[in-house]
Amino acid sequence: MSNLKSQIRVAILGYGNIGKAAEEAIKTAPDMELAGIYHHDDCLDKISNVKSQISNDERPVDVVLVCTPTREVQKFASVLAARGICTVDSFDIHGQIWNLREALDAVCTVNKSVSVISAGWDPGTDSMVRALFMAMAPKGLTYTNFGPGRSMGHTVAAKAIKGVKNALSMTIPLGTGIHRRMVYIELEEGAEFKTVEAAILADDYFAHDETHVIAVDSVDALNNVAHGVNLVRSGVSGETHNQRFEFNMEINNPALTGQIMVSAARAAFRMKARGEFGAKTMIELRPIDLLPGTIEQNVKALV
Amino acid sequence: MSNLKSQIRVAILGYGNIGKAAEEAIKTAPDMELAGIYHHDDCLDKISNVKSQISNDERPVDVVLVCTPTREVQKFASVLAARGICTVDSFDIHGQIWNLREALDAVCTVNKSVSVISAGWDPGTDSMVRALFMAMAPKGLTYTNFGPGRSMGHTVAAKAIKGVKNALSMTIPLGTGIHRRMVYIELEEGAEFKTVEAAILADDYFAHDETHVIAVDSVDALNNVAHGVNLVRSGVSGETHNQRFEFNMEINNPALTGQIMVSAARAAFRMKARGEFGAKTMIELRPIDLLPGTIEQNVKALV
Repeated sequence: MSNLKSQIRVAILGYGNIGKAAEEAIKTAPDMELAGIYHHDDCLDKISNVKSQISNDERPVDVVLVCTPTREVQKFASVLAARGICTVDSFDIHGQIWNLREALDAVCTVNKSVSVISAGWDPGTDSMVRALFMAMAPKGLTYTNFGPGRSMGHTVAAKAIKGVKNALSMTIPLGTGIHRRMVYIELEEGAEFKTVEAAILADDYFAHDETHVIAVDSVDALNNVAHGVNLVRSGVSGETHNQRFEFNMEINNPALTGQIMVSAARAAFRMKARGEFGAKTMIELRPIDLLPGTIEQNVKALV
Repeated sequence: MSNLKSQIRVAILGYGNIGKAAEEAIKTAPDMELAGIYHHDDCLDKISNVKSQISNDERPVDVVLVCTPTREVQKFASVLAARGICTVDSFDIHGQIWNLREALDAVCTVNKSVSVISAGWDPGTDSMVRALFMAMAPKGLTYTNFGPGRSMGHTVAAKAIKGVKNALSMTIPLGTGIHRRMVYIELEEGAEFKTVEAAILADDYFAHDETHVIAVDSVDALNNVAHGVNLVRSGVSGETHNQRFEFNMEINNPALTGQIMVSAARAAFRMKARGEFGAKTMIELRPIDLLPGTIEQNVKALV
């Protein structure tokens, strides 16, 4: 095992919730070692600095986990991929994933690297489950029900409303892909609850969902990184209807995201070693490539 | 779409429950056509006959679904793979999967074909879910709870007991991988229920599980191909415990198995086209390869 331990050298770029969780996952992986942590703040507009840090290392960095804010993923991943270094990100803007894949795929193909993109839980492992459900029952309806858990996008939208000092927007699953928004707010001094509530309810982020606004003394006291999903499909296998499938999870959100990125780093490393260059989403990865151990060990243990 | 329709020519070898279900799945696939149905009885000891039937076809058969009894899979798959024809089977003896993979892998590698083995739901898609759960939480316990549904092995064991005219053994999940056996029997004329019950309870198939034997007038009246699974994992992502995952399904068993084999045929065809020859289990397949459509279509729809 000891020579396996140092087989894959993985670095972290961006040291927030996800970067810290990824660090723990690297340390517990039997076949990886932590090659370095690059703080995102140090790197902004200092990409050349990261590059020289990485290339001056005694041994090359195999994979960099890009744990920056999602809108900065492409900038950093492109630079790294262009140097032949594999990257993994958890880019989570669903409508822009194909564009990111196209942009990074071109860089990876030319520079013989692999970028695994959108490697979180949704997009990410949920995507793999949705693909599997489609393979098992090609016709039918899949619903992805999120939560209960914090929605980053909605929380930011609520914080931006005038009179809101701090906010937390929880996503509550109501089934068939419909969600309730529970918005907890701390009011600015002198702000009227009714006015703030009306502004939140009118905001485009909340106007289309059942939304409840609740004033609290401390948003911080409510903070919890728990999240979950209930992913259901009723479909048709061949000509047989009423085939029912369900995937549930209740998890610590950054811990799971960090772990998935680390498992995806293993897949990136192996694909590069096999000459399978390019940018890939999770549904394009072989599940076995996510796991330590040999093919024989995993087939015997899991199949 | 019309030129896609005839892209993959898939034949069926063995026309029992699974072969019939596979036929329906081929007919509903947008990118496949049924290249032929070879009855298993016609093929026993007549492999050369199948070979000539297949090779005399106007167009080559791309993939043969081997829907024979599981113990005959290797014989047929080896002959087909040796001719460069891809195969898919749903071989389900867990302890012998690695041996089958090794044997077929050698044949496929030399003859530039692809065999997807053990492509049912367990082994098969359940294996993919178990692999995914391991990637999300590498430490912890996974339990696969089967049923309620008929166990073929236990049904055959019960039928073999003296005094049993017909039998049905249902597997009932009790959680943590523990199962109850509900054995419904029709007695032979003159057989004593108590004697038969004692013989079943003493049989090695039933001696280790909670087993109930019930005499019925007609086993046939109870027959139902419904089955299900409840697959749970509680594990550790990085250093964070209590990450909980669950996969449930309630399905028509042969319909799902036939559909999975057909989806796996698509993956075999594509891997062969890419020159990725060999024998593979489901955890070694990319989920996207199971689905019709382009990478772009599937990434946009599922990721």
